[in-house]
Amino acid sequence: MSEVAGRLAPIIAGQLLMNTNGGRGTLLSGIPGVTRGSVVIVGAGVLGKNAARAFLGIGAQVIVMDNDIRKLGCIDELLNGRVTTMMATRHNLERISKFTDVLVGAIQMPGRRAEQLITREMVRGMRPGSVILDFSIDDGGCTETSRPTTLSDPVYVAEEVIHYCVPNTPSAVARTTSYGLTNALLPFLIALGESGMLGILKHEPGFANGINLYQGNLAHPEIAAALGREVTANIPYGDAV
Amino acid sequence: MSEVAGRLAPIIAGQLLMNTNGGRGTLLSGIPGVTRGSVVIVGAGVLGKNAARAFLGIGAQVIVMDNDIRKLGCIDELLNGRVTTMMATRHNLERISKFTDVLVGAIQMPGRRAEQLITREMVRGMRPGSVILDFSIDDGGCTETSRPTTLSDPVYVAEEVIHYCVPNTPSAVARTTSYGLTNALLPFLIALGESGMLGILKHEPGFANGINLYQGNLAHPEIAAALGREVTANIPYGDAV
Amino acid sequence: MSEVAGRLAPIIAGQLLMNTNGGRGTLLSGIPGVTRGSVVIVGAGVLGKNAARAFLGIGAQVIVMDNDIRKLGCIDELLNGRVTTMMATRHNLERISKFTDVLVGAIQMPGRRAEQLITREMVRGMRPGSVILDFSIDDGGCTETSRPTTLSDPVYVAEEVIHYCVPNTPSAVARTTSYGLTNALLPFLIALGESGMLGILKHEPGFANGINLYQGNLAHPEIAAALGREVTANIPYGDAV
Amino acid sequence: MSEVAGRLAPIIAGQLLMNTNGGRGTLLSGIPGVTRGSVVIVGAGVLGKNAARAFLGIGAQVIVMDNDIRKLGCIDELLNGRVTTMMATRHNLERISKFTDVLVGAIQMPGRRAEQLITREMVRGMRPGSVILDFSIDDGGCTETSRPTTLSDPVYVAEEVIHYCVPNTPSAVARTTSYGLTNALLPFLIALGESGMLGILKHEPGFANGINLYQGNLAHPEIAAALGREVTANIPYGDAV
Amino acid sequence: MSEVAGRLAPIIAGQLLMNTNGGRGTLLSGIPGVTRGSVVIVGAGVLGKNAARAFLGIGAQVIVMDNDIRKLGCIDELLNGRVTTMMATRHNLERISKFTDVLVGAIQMPGRRAEQLITREMVRGMRPGSVILDFSIDDGGCTETSRPTTLSDPVYVAEEVIHYCVPNTPSAVARTTSYGLTNALLPFLIALGESGMLGILKHEPGFANGINLYQGNLAHPEIAAALGREVTANIPYGDAV
Amino acid sequence: MSEVAGRLAPIIAGQLLMNTNGGRGTLLSGIPGVTRGSVVIVGAGVLGKNAARAFLGIGAQVIVMDNDIRKLGCIDELLNGRVTTMMATRHNLERISKFTDVLVGAIQMPGRRAEQLITREMVRGMRPGSVILDFSIDDGGCTETSRPTTLSDPVYVAEEVIHYCVPNTPSAVARTTSYGLTNALLPFLIALGESGMLGILKHEPGFANGINLYQGNLAHPEIAAALGREVTANIPYGDAV
Repeated sequence: MSEVAGRLAPIIAGQLLMNTNGGRGTLLSGIPGVTRGSVVIVGAGVLGKNAARAFLGIGAQVIVMDNDIRKLGCIDELLNGRVTTMMATRHNLERISKFTDVLVGAIQMPGRRAEQLITREMVRGMRPGSVILDFSIDDGGCTETSRPTTLSDPVYVAEEVIHYCVPNTPSAVARTTSYGLTNALLPFLIALGESGMLGILKHEPGFANGINLYQGNLAHPEIAAALGREVTANIPYGDAV
Repeated sequence: MSEVAGRLAPIIAGQLLMNTNGGRGTLLSGIPGVTRGSVVIVGAGVLGKNAARAFLGIGAQVIVMDNDIRKLGCIDELLNGRVTTMMATRHNLERISKFTDVLVGAIQMPGRRAEQLITREMVRGMRPGSVILDFSIDDGGCTETSRPTTLSDPVYVAEEVIHYCVPNTPSAVARTTSYGLTNALLPFLIALGESGMLGILKHEPGFANGINLYQGNLAHPEIAAALGREVTANIPYGDAV
Repeated sequence: MSEVAGRLAPIIAGQLLMNTNGGRGTLLSGIPGVTRGSVVIVGAGVLGKNAARAFLGIGAQVIVMDNDIRKLGCIDELLNGRVTTMMATRHNLERISKFTDVLVGAIQMPGRRAEQLITREMVRGMRPGSVILDFSIDDGGCTETSRPTTLSDPVYVAEEVIHYCVPNTPSAVARTTSYGLTNALLPFLIALGESGMLGILKHEPGFANGINLYQGNLAHPEIAAALGREVTANIPYGDAV
Repeated sequence: MSEVAGRLAPIIAGQLLMNTNGGRGTLLSGIPGVTRGSVVIVGAGVLGKNAARAFLGIGAQVIVMDNDIRKLGCIDELLNGRVTTMMATRHNLERISKFTDVLVGAIQMPGRRAEQLITREMVRGMRPGSVILDFSIDDGGCTETSRPTTLSDPVYVAEEVIHYCVPNTPSAVARTTSYGLTNALLPFLIALGESGMLGILKHEPGFANGINLYQGNLAHPEIAAALGREVTANIPYGDAV
Repeated sequence: MSEVAGRLAPIIAGQLLMNTNGGRGTLLSGIPGVTRGSVVIVGAGVLGKNAARAFLGIGAQVIVMDNDIRKLGCIDELLNGRVTTMMATRHNLERISKFTDVLVGAIQMPGRRAEQLITREMVRGMRPGSVILDFSIDDGGCTETSRPTTLSDPVYVAEEVIHYCVPNTPSAVARTTSYGLTNALLPFLIALGESGMLGILKHEPGFANGINLYQGNLAHPEIAAALGREVTANIPYGDAV
Repeated sequence: MSEVAGRLAPIIAGQLLMNTNGGRGTLLSGIPGVTRGSVVIVGAGVLGKNAARAFLGIGAQVIVMDNDIRKLGCIDELLNGRVTTMMATRHNLERISKFTDVLVGAIQMPGRRAEQLITREMVRGMRPGSVILDFSIDDGGCTETSRPTTLSDPVYVAEEVIHYCVPNTPSAVARTTSYGLTNALLPFLIALGESGMLGILKHEPGFANGINLYQGNLAHPEIAAALGREVTANIPYGDAV
C-alpha cells in the first residue's frame, strides 16, 4: 500500500498548499519565471521512491533523504539523477527544512516505532503555511508534532505548519486500493484454499510468521516475549523462514 | 494564467476522485497491476498543453482533443508522442467520454463564448463519480451541465458526475499567481510610468486595444458596437496593431 | 533469445497490420489527430519487457499483463510508468482483447507447456484484421487458436485474426542472433575446452542439468521419469545445483 | 502524409533487413553485447523528423543529414541531442553510406524534382543486404538507382542493396491515413460547402493556388507557363496569398 | 557560435571547480547522498539554452534567469520543466548568487553593451571557490568584476571567486567550431560567388546590414552615427531588411 | 569512489580534447550539423555505468564494452537503450579504437591486476589528439601505454594520444568525495565504537576480511599465502562471510 500513499502524496500536498486550505499558495510545478515548489522526502523506501517519482512528475524540486546510501543510489539510478539525495542527518534536516514547501515523512521500519527525526524545533523553523505529510504515523510518526488524524478530518495546524497524519491514506482511493490488495492477496488465498494451512507452509514458509497459536501452543515470538513466556509450538516447515 | 490552471488540474482532479469527496476512488497513476486513470482534455491551447504535461507527469493516461490539427501536432512533438491526440468531433467525444475518469474543458477562444461541445447526454453517459473540470467557465463553459462555482464552494454533482467550475482557479495558489502576474505586467507598468500613455503606444501599440475612451471619444470597437455607435477616437500609433 | 523476439515484435506486428497483408490498416504510432494502435502483451518476463519497451518506443499504447505483481512492478519502474499494467485474469483478458490491435503471447515457463490463457472465444471477440503474435508457440502456444508456422510461411488467419506463430523467430535476424548466441556461449565453450567436463562442473554446476547419461548411468531426472526408471548416475559436483 | 511515411519507415526497414527478405539479418535495436543498426536519413523535413523519432524509438543509431542547419537544429532540440546531425555534402554522404544498414531518402521539395544526392557509386559502396527506402520517389527519387515500385511488389535489388521505392506508402495503413486525410480536409470542405468558392477565398486565400481556370480565364501560373501563355484570370482575394 | 560556448560551459566550469584549480571541490552531478552542484544561468537566449541543457545533462541543478518570460517559457518547454526559471531581478540575483557553485553570464544583446547585472557586491557574497563564466565578455561583460582573459591564461580570482572571461571560447574546440562556421557560411559564400554582391542582396537582403560603404557612400547607420554623419548610400534591395 | 571518477570523466575528457591542451579540438556534444564526439568505455561496472550516464548526458555518442553480458544488459536497461553495448573482444577493441575521440579504461577487478586489454598497437591506431583516461591505473592500468601520473601533472602523450592516468582522481573534487566517504564509513565507525571489534563482527561479518592478525595468529588468507603460511586465527563470527 506504500505505493498508493507515495503516489497520492503530490495530490494531497498540492491541495493543502492552496490558500483556500490555509497553505502558502504555492504551485508545485511553478510556472515560467516563478520558482517551483520544493519537497523533502525523508525515507527512501517504497513509499519514498513512489513519492519522489510522483512529485518529480508533477514538476516539483525534490530532495530525498535517508541514512542508507544504497537506497539513495537506487533512487538516483531509477530517476536518472533528477532528484537530489542526502543523508538524513540532524544537520541536514535542520538546514533543509527551513526552505521546503512540503515535507514528507516516509520512514518505514516494519514492526518498529518510527524514529522522530523531525523535531518540534525544526517544524518551528519551517515557513508558515508549509505542509507536513507524516505517512509514518502508522508506526507512531516521524515528526515530534504529529498525531493521528482521520480521512474525514485529516489536517491540523501546529507551529504554523499544516499537518496531514492520516494512518490509512490509501483507503481514500478505495477502488485502486481494493484491486491492489486483491491482486496481492488472491494468489495466497487460492493457495490456502487448495492446500490447507500446513500445505501452504510448505511452499510459502513466510506464512508461519502470521501464526499466533498452533495446537494450543504459543507460536509467535513477539507475543510470547510480550507475555514473558517462551515459544512452545513446533510448526512444520516454519523454521525455513 | 492558463499555465497555472493547467498545472493545477491533476491536483484538483486527483483530490475530487477520492472516495471522501464522492469520487470514483481512482488513483490517477494506478499501481502495478491496477490500471491508470484516464483523462480527456478538450482543447489543445496553452491550458490544455500544460494540463496534458501535468497529468502525464503524474502517471495518468491522457487523450487530448481539438479541432486544429496543428495544435495537436505541437502537443505530439512537445510530449514526444506520449499522449493520444484526436479530433474533437461529436462522434469521438461521445465514444471517449464513456470511459474517462476525468474530463477537462480547456477550450479557449478569447472574447467569444466557449462552444458547448460536451452535451448533457454525454455527461449522463459518463461513469458515476467521475470528474469534470470546466476551465472554460470564464467564457461560459464548454459543458452543457456546468455553471460557475466559487473557490469556497467549488463543486456540485450533476448527472452523478462531480463538476468543478471555478472561474478564477489560479487564485487558489495566490503566491505563484501573484509573482506570475507581476512578472508579466511589471515591464509594461515600468514602461508606462517612464513613457506616459502615448509614449508607450509607440513601442507597444497593442496597448491601444485596452483604451475605451480617448479625449472624450469612443475608442473601443466592441464597446462601440455594443452601444450601436461608431469609433470616433483617433489614437496615435494605435493603428499599428 | 527472448530479447531478440521481443524487440522484433513491433516490426512484425506493424507489417502485418498493413492492408497489403490483410491487416486493419493501423499505424502503431498514430499521427496527430488519429489515435495510436493499442498493444496487449501477455507475460512480463524478458520477452514481454523487451516487447513493451520496443512498442512504446515506436509510439503505441501498451498494456502488459501478468499474474506476478513483482514483474509488473519491475516493468512499471523500468518504463517509468509509461505502460498500463494489469493482472492477467480471465475477466481482464476478455475485456481488453476486444479493443486491441495487437496481442503478443509472451508467456515463458521454461520446461512447461504454456497455459492457454487466450481462448478461441476471446480471439473471436477481437476486431477483424487485428494481429496475434504467439511467441509462446515454442512451449505449445498460449492461444487456443495458435499452431506452429514457419519463417517462410509465417501467418494464417483464424477467426478473422492474423496469427503469427513462428517457433524460432530470432533466426529471422540471423546476424544479430548469431553474435548474441556466440557472446552468451563462448565463455562456457572456452571454459569447457580448458577444464574438461568434470572440471567445468566444479565452477558451473548448472552444466550437470544438461547431462543425460554419465558413465552408462541415467543422469537426467525427467528422462528417467519418462522412461519409468530411476536416476542412477552420480555426477561429481552436480548436487550443488 | 509525410508523418505516416516517416513513422512507417522503421517497420518497413526492419522487415527488409530480415534474412528471409534477403537483408543483412540485423536487428535495428541490437541486443546487449551486439551493436545496434545504423540509419542515415537524408532530409530533415517533416518526413525526416518523423522517421528520426521512430527509428530512435525502436532503438537504432540515427544520423540525420540536410543542407539547412536550421532544420538540423530543430531536430536536435526536438530529440534532445539523441541523433547525430550532419550536412548533406557529397563528402559526408560517401563516407557515411559505407557503414549504414538503412538509408532513408526523405528529401522533399514541393513541386520540384528531388536532387539525386545518392549516386550509383555510393550505393555500390554500401554493404550487401542493406536497405534503401527512397520516399522522394514521388518527386523522382533522390537515389540514382531508384525507380518506382508498387505496394504489391515493393522491392528490388540493385548493386546488392534492397530498394523500396513505393510512391504512395501511406496507403499501406489505409485506416490511419484515411482518418488523417479526413481530419486535414474536412474543415475546408465544410467551409467550402458553407461559403461557396468565392466565400472561402476570403478566409483561406491559399485556395486560390488550386484554381486552374476562373470564368474561362487561365488562373494557374505554372500551367500558364507550361502552355506558353499568360495568366489572365483575376480571382478576388487571391492576391492575398 | 553561442551553441558551442553553451555546450562547453559544464566542461569548463566542472574543471575550474576542482581543488587543483582552486575551486570548491564540488562534483556538479553530486553522488548518491551528496548534493548536486547548483548552476545559475543569466540569459535565456541560444547560449543560455544550450548551457542549461548541457548542465542538466551532466546532472547539475539548474536555474535560468531572464527578464523575457517568453524565453523562460521556451526553455521550460524544451527541457520539460526540469530547470527552475526566474526573472532576472536584482532581488532574485542577490538571493540566488549566494548559494550557487557556478554562475554563467549568458546575456546576448547583439550590437549593444551587455548590462552589468551582476554587481561586485553580489560577487563578494558568493562562496569562496565558486566559479563565474562570463560569456558576455564579448559585449563588455555582464559582471562588474569581469575583464577579458585569453585561452592561454583564461582565469583570475576576484573577491575569492574564479573568473573565466575568454572572449572567443569556441576556438578552444577548433575542429567542431570550424566545421560549424563552414556549415553556416558556405551556402552564403557559394551564393555570393554565383550571384555577385547585388545578386545576393535580392534573395538575402540581410546581407545589406554588413555593408559599410557602397559606391563611396556611407551605408551603415551605426558607423554613420558614430561619425556624426548621415547614411547616404542607396543600396538596392537593402530596404527589404 | 568509482561513482565520482565515472561522473568526472566527461569533464576531464572534454577539457583534454581542447586544442589548448593538445587535443583534437572536438566538442563532445557536437552542434547541429557537426557530428558528436564518440566515447568508448571499457568496463561496465560501477565506474563504467556512471561514466556512460555522464557522457550520454553531455551529448556524446557512447559505446560500452565488457565481457559480461549481464552487466551490458543492466546498462542497456538503465540507459534505456541509448548506448551501444559490445563484447570487449580483441577484434572489437581494434576496430572501435580507430574511430573514437575518448577511450575510458574502467576495468575493475578488486584485488587483481587489471588486464591490459588495450595494446600499444591499438593506441598507435588511434587518431592523433584523442584521449585515454585509464582509471584502472590503481590496479596497474588496462592500457599497455599507461603509467601513473599525479593530479598536479596529470597527462602525457604517447603514440600521439593524450593519456590521463591519475590513480586517485576523486580527490580532485575533495568536497564531494569527503562527504561521500563520510557517508559510507560513518555508520560503520559508529557501530565499531558502540560494539567493539568482536561486537561489530556479529552484525557485519564482512569486517573480518579486514583483520590481518587476531590474538597473534595470522587471519588474512592472502597475506598468509604470500608468506607461504597457513591461516591460524579463529575469528568469532568471521566464518559467516
